Amino acid sequence: MDTSSVGIVSPRVEHFDTPLRFATGSELPAYDLIFETYGELNAAGSNAVLICHALSGHHHAAGRHSEDERKTGWWDVCIGPGKPIDTNRFFVVSLNNLGGCHGSTGPTSINPATGEVWGPEFPQPQVEDWVDAQARLADRLGIDCWAAVIGGSLGGMQAMTWSLRYPDRVRHCVAIAAALKLSAQNIAFNEIARRAIISDPGWCDGHYLRENTLPAQGLALARMVGHITYLSDNAMASRFGRELQASEGDEDEDGRREFQVESYLRYQGARFSTVFDANTYVLMTRALDHFDLGGPGADPVDAFRRSQCDYLVLSFSTDWRFSPARSREIVDALLAAERPVSYAEIVADEGHDAFLLPIPRYLAVLDAYLQRVVT
Amino acid sequence: MDTSSVGIVSPRVEHFDTPLRFATGSELPAYDLIFETYGELNAAGSNAVLICHALSGHHHAAGRHSEDERKTGWWDVCIGPGKPIDTNRFFVVSLNNLGGCHGSTGPTSINPATGEVWGPEFPQPQVEDWVDAQARLADRLGIDCWAAVIGGSLGGMQAMTWSLRYPDRVRHCVAIAAALKLSAQNIAFNEIARRAIISDPGWCDGHYLRENTLPAQGLALARMVGHITYLSDNAMASRFGRELQASEGDEDEDGRREFQVESYLRYQGARFSTVFDANTYVLMTRALDHFDLGGPGADPVDAFRRSQCDYLVLSFSTDWRFSPARSREIVDALLAAERPVSYAEIVADEGHDAFLLPIPRYLAVLDAYLQRVVT
Repeated sequence: MDTSSVGIVSPRVEHFDTPLRFATGSELPAYDLIFETYGELNAAGSNAVLICHALSGHHHAAGRHSEDERKTGWWDVCIGPGKPIDTNRFFVVSLNNLGGCHGSTGPTSINPATGEVWGPEFPQPQVEDWVDAQARLADRLGIDCWAAVIGGSLGGMQAMTWSLRYPDRVRHCVAIAAALKLSAQNIAFNEIARRAIISDPGWCDGHYLRENTLPAQGLALARMVGHITYLSDNAMASRFGRELQASEGDEDEDGRREFQVESYLRYQGARFSTVFDANTYVLMTRALDHFDLGGPGADPVDAFRRSQCDYLVLSFSTDWRFSPARSREIVDALLAAERPVSYAEIVADEGHDAFLLPIPRYLAVLDAYLQRVVT
Repeated sequence: MDTSSVGIVSPRVEHFDTPLRFATGSELPAYDLIFETYGELNAAGSNAVLICHALSGHHHAAGRHSEDERKTGWWDVCIGPGKPIDTNRFFVVSLNNLGGCHGSTGPTSINPATGEVWGPEFPQPQVEDWVDAQARLADRLGIDCWAAVIGGSLGGMQAMTWSLRYPDRVRHCVAIAAALKLSAQNIAFNEIARRAIISDPGWCDGHYLRENTLPAQGLALARMVGHITYLSDNAMASRFGRELQASEGDEDEDGRREFQVESYLRYQGARFSTVFDANTYVLMTRALDHFDLGGPGADPVDAFRRSQCDYLVLSFSTDWRFSPARSREIVDALLAAERPVSYAEIVADEGHDAFLLPIPRYLAVLDAYLQRVVT
């Protein structure tokens, strides 16, 4: 038995029937949130930690759903007994965000007003809408104030937004490989991903489920773009180099032997296209593009002045999608706002994906910080 | 009148009916090469400079085809009277490579064996095949030895290959923003571009002309990927920032105002898809992926020992597709092979695209080097 694992876990679903008004003005009349919890909430309710997921993440962050589940949750390296997010100390909550495709209400859910699948008509959430939904989940779970809100990438943006929107409900905020807002290059990569999906004839204006099609090729391409940009040049070089596929049967349509990186990307893209919803992908990337800490065009220093928590900001040396420079902008704004912040740039070869990986120095820094959190 | 321009130019076409055997074993029975020349060949035939084009380039490198042509040739900033590639001194030759779509024989040409358009059956050239075809063009023009062979990106790979394949026919080799070979990341971006084209239903296995379709969306996507990766993050930030489209009518399909970078990329992609051939794009990226100086897996130091010319290697500080590190690998191999080489890394914000732009220090370094070339 693996004593550092949370073991077998089961997701739960909470239903909410108070309408939720989104930042864009749309309203979601009722919704479900699917989530998992690891560890026990203490009597004071003071040891709760919220995990916010990134673009293609979900609620299943640690442990396994059954003994024979092949892979653990997506952040099992960080969450568990004795791990940095220590379930012996913390009550950890991990949910799937609204608009997701893993059990929370999203584009694949039924729109009660029409009796049909929401599809592309699902209202576009912004990061603050996710935070509002998470706050209602906290209410339901009896959590007045999070010991910490933690997230990587888009999850880090949710964590920072928590600290501004509910300053008295967050004691520590951990933003990993995040940014105050996306760069033009980042938006451009997301636009390519969306364009790949939208120009797939299976897209059908987003009504692919109703039309019984799937924009599988487009979604696969979108994933391939993400995959490359989340890895560093070095990481790809050391994983694939310029090796050609070794075995027969790996030739491309013209009978040429392919580079391993080509077939790997195609495989990953094709697999993703069978397990992820295209409308969710479009919606999540749009939320990411439009994120701008404190509101469109806001001064992040002014925004952070509203906060009351302690911050940890982490970045990875070879992350070029959300580079250390972007994290330093967060730190600079926090310092200018005279807020307490710790920062570390982790030397790691794995690019943006590093935040998901068991990099010893990364885990050590996160662990040391969370040890300081009083529960 | 612009005295620094080569003025109005006209392309010429030479027909070759001696079969050309490609590195892959395929044979092109006969072919045309379209090219332009600027300046005059001197009596000794010693002042000829060959320009090799990059992925989506062509023969029209300088001047205009007519008074009312809106844009000049693609390298007009470098080629002309008094410019670094000085047409008062040099006889400059610029051609469209085999497999291209601007007048040289390529996938849109008629296959004499079938009487139909070559399409995807056009034999896949490698960089050395282009160099062989260029050598025959040199023979035809009475050029025994180039004063210089110059190219950026894929063009730089052709220039280096000239120096190995015809060591006694090149006196100077200028490789700008090039590499000894592509990285896994580079191959991966090219694979995404190809996949976008190939998964477009208008692709029709490459027989889109016969089927009267076009993989326009796929080609546009491919161009968008190229466009982002040829620009630096900073260049995109200063050009677009996070500005939204200002005017009405620029909303996306859901009525949202878009970021300027999104509509710019879409416009560029759509325009490219109407002027460039998809089979050519696939073929050019494959040649790029498979380039490996001196042959697959060869030691570049051994390869360069065959050369007899003087080298100039240039890179740009923010070029992340063919980074300065890649250029330094070229320089290191040349030094290890005890070959004469000058190197400069130009500080420029424009990424890979910098090699096409009028960056004063870049033009000054190129000019100073070419001043030393005896004609």
